[in-house]
Amino acid sequence: MSGNRFGALFHYTTFGESHGPAIGVVVDGVPPRLSLCESDIQVYLDRRKPGQNRFTTQRREADSIRILSGVFEGLTTGAPIGMIVENTDVKSKDYDEIKDKFRPGHADFTYEKKYGIRDYRGGGRSSARETAMRVAAGAVARKVIDYHCSGVTIRGAVIQIGPHPLDRERWDWAEIDRNPFFSPDSAIVPVWEEFLDGRRKAGSSAGAIVEVHAQGIPAGLGAPVYDRLDADLAKAMMSINAVKGVEIGDGFGSALLSGEENADEMRAGPDGRPVFLSNHAGGVLGGISTGQDLVVRMAFKPTSSILTTVRTMDRHGQNTDITTRGRHDPCVGIRGVPVAEAMMACVLADHILRHKAQCSLKGFGDAS
Amino acid sequence: MSGNRFGALFHYTTFGESHGPAIGVVVDGVPPRLSLCESDIQVYLDRRKPGQNRFTTQRREADSIRILSGVFEGLTTGAPIGMIVENTDVKSKDYDEIKDKFRPGHADFTYEKKYGIRDYRGGGRSSARETAMRVAAGAVARKVIDYHCSGVTIRGAVIQIGPHPLDRERWDWAEIDRNPFFSPDSAIVPVWEEFLDGRRKAGSSAGAIVEVHAQGIPAGLGAPVYDRLDADLAKAMMSINAVKGVEIGDGFGSALLSGEENADEMRAGPDGRPVFLSNHAGGVLGGISTGQDLVVRMAFKPTSSILTTVRTMDRHGQNTDITTRGRHDPCVGIRGVPVAEAMMACVLADHILRHKAQCSLKGFGDAS
Amino acid sequence: MSGNRFGALFHYTTFGESHGPAIGVVVDGVPPRLSLCESDIQVYLDRRKPGQNRFTTQRREADSIRILSGVFEGLTTGAPIGMIVENTDVKSKDYDEIKDKFRPGHADFTYEKKYGIRDYRGGGRSSARETAMRVAAGAVARKVIDYHCSGVTIRGAVIQIGPHPLDRERWDWAEIDRNPFFSPDSAIVPVWEEFLDGRRKAGSSAGAIVEVHAQGIPAGLGAPVYDRLDADLAKAMMSINAVKGVEIGDGFGSALLSGEENADEMRAGPDGRPVFLSNHAGGVLGGISTGQDLVVRMAFKPTSSILTTVRTMDRHGQNTDITTRGRHDPCVGIRGVPVAEAMMACVLADHILRHKAQCSLKGFGDAS
Amino acid sequence: MSGNRFGALFHYTTFGESHGPAIGVVVDGVPPRLSLCESDIQVYLDRRKPGQNRFTTQRREADSIRILSGVFEGLTTGAPIGMIVENTDVKSKDYDEIKDKFRPGHADFTYEKKYGIRDYRGGGRSSARETAMRVAAGAVARKVIDYHCSGVTIRGAVIQIGPHPLDRERWDWAEIDRNPFFSPDSAIVPVWEEFLDGRRKAGSSAGAIVEVHAQGIPAGLGAPVYDRLDADLAKAMMSINAVKGVEIGDGFGSALLSGEENADEMRAGPDGRPVFLSNHAGGVLGGISTGQDLVVRMAFKPTSSILTTVRTMDRHGQNTDITTRGRHDPCVGIRGVPVAEAMMACVLADHILRHKAQCSLKGFGDAS
Repeated sequence: MSGNRFGALFHYTTFGESHGPAIGVVVDGVPPRLSLCESDIQVYLDRRKPGQNRFTTQRREADSIRILSGVFEGLTTGAPIGMIVENTDVKSKDYDEIKDKFRPGHADFTYEKKYGIRDYRGGGRSSARETAMRVAAGAVARKVIDYHCSGVTIRGAVIQIGPHPLDRERWDWAEIDRNPFFSPDSAIVPVWEEFLDGRRKAGSSAGAIVEVHAQGIPAGLGAPVYDRLDADLAKAMMSINAVKGVEIGDGFGSALLSGEENADEMRAGPDGRPVFLSNHAGGVLGGISTGQDLVVRMAFKPTSSILTTVRTMDRHGQNTDITTRGRHDPCVGIRGVPVAEAMMACVLADHILRHKAQCSLKGFGDAS
Repeated sequence: MSGNRFGALFHYTTFGESHGPAIGVVVDGVPPRLSLCESDIQVYLDRRKPGQNRFTTQRREADSIRILSGVFEGLTTGAPIGMIVENTDVKSKDYDEIKDKFRPGHADFTYEKKYGIRDYRGGGRSSARETAMRVAAGAVARKVIDYHCSGVTIRGAVIQIGPHPLDRERWDWAEIDRNPFFSPDSAIVPVWEEFLDGRRKAGSSAGAIVEVHAQGIPAGLGAPVYDRLDADLAKAMMSINAVKGVEIGDGFGSALLSGEENADEMRAGPDGRPVFLSNHAGGVLGGISTGQDLVVRMAFKPTSSILTTVRTMDRHGQNTDITTRGRHDPCVGIRGVPVAEAMMACVLADHILRHKAQCSLKGFGDAS
Repeated sequence: MSGNRFGALFHYTTFGESHGPAIGVVVDGVPPRLSLCESDIQVYLDRRKPGQNRFTTQRREADSIRILSGVFEGLTTGAPIGMIVENTDVKSKDYDEIKDKFRPGHADFTYEKKYGIRDYRGGGRSSARETAMRVAAGAVARKVIDYHCSGVTIRGAVIQIGPHPLDRERWDWAEIDRNPFFSPDSAIVPVWEEFLDGRRKAGSSAGAIVEVHAQGIPAGLGAPVYDRLDADLAKAMMSINAVKGVEIGDGFGSALLSGEENADEMRAGPDGRPVFLSNHAGGVLGGISTGQDLVVRMAFKPTSSILTTVRTMDRHGQNTDITTRGRHDPCVGIRGVPVAEAMMACVLADHILRHKAQCSLKGFGDAS
Repeated sequence: MSGNRFGALFHYTTFGESHGPAIGVVVDGVPPRLSLCESDIQVYLDRRKPGQNRFTTQRREADSIRILSGVFEGLTTGAPIGMIVENTDVKSKDYDEIKDKFRPGHADFTYEKKYGIRDYRGGGRSSARETAMRVAAGAVARKVIDYHCSGVTIRGAVIQIGPHPLDRERWDWAEIDRNPFFSPDSAIVPVWEEFLDGRRKAGSSAGAIVEVHAQGIPAGLGAPVYDRLDADLAKAMMSINAVKGVEIGDGFGSALLSGEENADEMRAGPDGRPVFLSNHAGGVLGGISTGQDLVVRMAFKPTSSILTTVRTMDRHGQNTDITTRGRHDPCVGIRGVPVAEAMMACVLADHILRHKAQCSLKGFGDAS
């Protein structure tokens, strides 16, 4: 009830603060006998890891994951999987100034109002550092998805930084790992580099739009009426730090369409399965997957930590100014890509188990 | 786990199909001793009621709410509040054609894939008729909000139909109830009338954008990290039939801002409370309310039920065509306004109780 | 969170008061395409129905169940199953006296302290009338169990009334429906008749012990560590009105055993499955079913509504006396049998779906 | 959904196996600004710690708790409190024999059937080692209780070992910490010592009955109909390893009473609060606390790990014998006392927050 848990059947709980001794996650509901080891998780953590180039924060964390439970001789046991990452590169004195001041755009003021206390060091619990544990949970979720629905691919991309969108005609997934922006359009990379260098040098920051696709998922995933697949994705994505908007398929653009334009017509495919002639719906109808690509887009606001001095108030109700020091991403949307992929994986793994519980008509038996 | 429940502490469960004997809702977690009667709920149902003008479906339902439990001598007792509305104007034979065909843009195909069976009459459980029960729950939620935080105003508006946005400079909440579109801009009304008449006469439909505000809410509502106020709102709104995108505050527009532009600066107000100099955040920071207006926007796709014939497939994997008959809203976004308001109310009522459980430092005692 | 819901995946929510217009239940999580009609449920309600002999309350309720949703053409659709029973034989004026007085042994005082208000008519929400809806949910649960694990038999018996236990040597399940006590021992029936007639005529009441068995369940059901099958059964049974104790297998008697006596030794059966040489465990080890008979016992306190005048207090803090009028069961444990069977069925149906979600290794696919 | 979480508003999740690197718990829902440090928790862990005398297992664990999150400068922050204890005295080779054999009375067989895999070292997840984390959570729960309801005392006692009950007339809480049995009756101590030495030397084990009291709790705690205070206590206690029965108040004895005997009569006390003339109900009516002492009793079966050779089966369906080695408690009920106290504390803390959310009429406001 305190908001640190995500998911219903495949679910996880995170804990830990930015500058505490460690951050951790307990992943539960995982089917037994899936192969799992630390390197299965580390590979995803490494994609999100800070300090890898000048467009992310210079905090250096190994982000080495340690599995404490739930895995025996390389296989999941069905017991909860506890994992922790020790915090190592902690410079808490960077944060002395914000002890009493509220940074505009940050959660300082709201945590203070809610709890009457806050661990101000690095933003404490509100820090994006928490998202490392989402990525760890997402790595386990991918195992669950693979086990039940082989052939699913989940991947995300930055599609816009500041006012500069990529060109969708040049979209090539293979480019994603060849640039520091998770951009599928190599031609936009220098534009973004120049733009972001400018913002960074000015002590400012930039927003971004991220798009995540899931390909190869079966039709039938989702749980109307409230736990629609798209509603759960909206919650998952909006829960990521700095996200301010979420769209499925055509999203806000669908308001402009006519009923005929919006209808994704269907034709019977060679195997009796439908071929959809378009995908305005983004792979979801009535809250349930159609089997088409699941397409989700989200907007990240610019990083609130900026070097420019802005006006604010302190805990004692006095006017003051603040300049945020510390080490920050000039554009949090970039490292948002592996986080958004992880959230997509967690939502899908959860809905696979939910579907299995209620609707799967094939088979029920003991594990042996 | 089957998705028919919404909320954690203030929560409700709906049941019923479009053309079944009745639809119903059980609202639970309601504080005792709040005054509540059927007319408190009916007034909101009447705002959503179909058949009130030519821009909504011509199905005529009295939508008379009947309270079955949880209220004694005009006061809530703390027990669950069961309510039903009988379905009266049911023309199921309109739906014979869709028994075996999948209407593009509808949930026919996905329900079939998920459940292997569907109540095709009027869309069954996937019908927007379910939203009447959200409105009923929302009416109770408003009582809970009023009880704990007097002075909260929740209200929504259509801000765009098809390609026609209203002019925000002309925004006047008093106009909302004077036109069939919940428009706060009287000047756009004739534009929308003409546009929608055109679509309606062409057997087509239109999308819309709806914005909902909550004024007067206290700072401190919300539950990081996953159950952020904005994440719960995103889920709530995305769960409404036909919604394809949700934004908080500047939403997708925030991707265009610089860090300085995005920072809502603060000044100490005369009473020590902050005065924010802008509200790009839409009233939420770190998932917790700031006390500013909570601003949520959502996109409705055009009604999928259209008279134009479109290509589709049937249950037997054969190609076919379909023309949707039955009675439908040419623009579902319009009647989406009271539904979105209700969802906002439910999210807020829930988070008020959640905050009270964990963080309210004042008082705990028995009810007497 | 308000305690009106039971179960995790197979789950239901009840509403309604003893003397309100109706009582109802929403059963959710039910697999699609199970055959279900009102008579499937009515048959169980009739076993619990009051007024059938002199050993139960003389209130006469038809207890006719009406299915409002979730069933289409005789099959479940996967949507929530809403059901109601109208209250017809309501004599609320019997309860005027208790409006201000707290009946000892009843929930009058505690509801007053918790809620500051109570629907005193017939006990309102605290009445055992609510258990009719448990029986309705249990009937649906049996369908779920049959679908996934054919051959499961759930049945209960009264094994003791007041100080008179039955003779386990004479146990014959066939006797259960041949006497008004659900007794499997015909020889104890006249003893109980005489004993209970005496209590009834004296305006007093009696306690009872009920035992419920589930035969034929598979090994592997249950979810350690907290949602053990036995822990969930303990909660389910203790939640029945008037139950004060719950045992699994040897229960309190197991405290007397030595480790060797308590160990249920195993031998390999002809089919490789184990044959247990005893069942002290009552069919559960480590919170998970062994495949042996699941054996649960529970104690019902004597009905608190008695004609004898007892000392109490009123709402105004004044001493007073009270004599409970109204129509009551002289021994609530008797009608507790179908209720306890229903709770057993609900727990098992829930754990079957839970097991299926996480552990069933066979098959996952769409419903078609 | 996988059973590793307990509680609704005050809730916690445990992870870890007997012979894994560590066991841990995440406690969530805790009000902010409560003082909390490791020694607040350690004191309770020390009461449960193994190896303290010859009547408990000789495994030697420091059970040193480490708080990883949720506490800042000695105060809770409202964020989840992650805690771990490293396992240090692990002798896994003791368990080689049980790798393929099922120990009667243990969860070996059922885990195998459920999961198709099991961490057999020391029982893995099914080990009573998990209860250390319950004790840690319970220590936090006590802080929550103290904060909201000062003056509550929760304490437990062993009241019977094997066939030897204590004499309730000699009950003295002060004796509890003066003997290795948590016995409030000093005269029974030598009887239990002799009895248990006999069992221990014979390689056997003994069962026990434990009773836990909560004094000073307010009236009004509990959430009818399913989440009754007594139902939640029954689940909590039955979820403790080796517990086979749970009673509230007179429990099974109440079946023997007449309605008059069972009715706890009330008199108005000097302050207008009721004085109950007896407490057959054990402090709960209708699932809600009366304000009297809450009295719960539970039966522990004898430790299943015994040196006597018993007949069993192996994973390959072959008959075999087994003699359990390893280090074990001759009577697990003894160390069950601090565990049962902890579960009582967790249930009460949870219901305090639940009551506060729905029913507390006094006050709602921000934390500042």
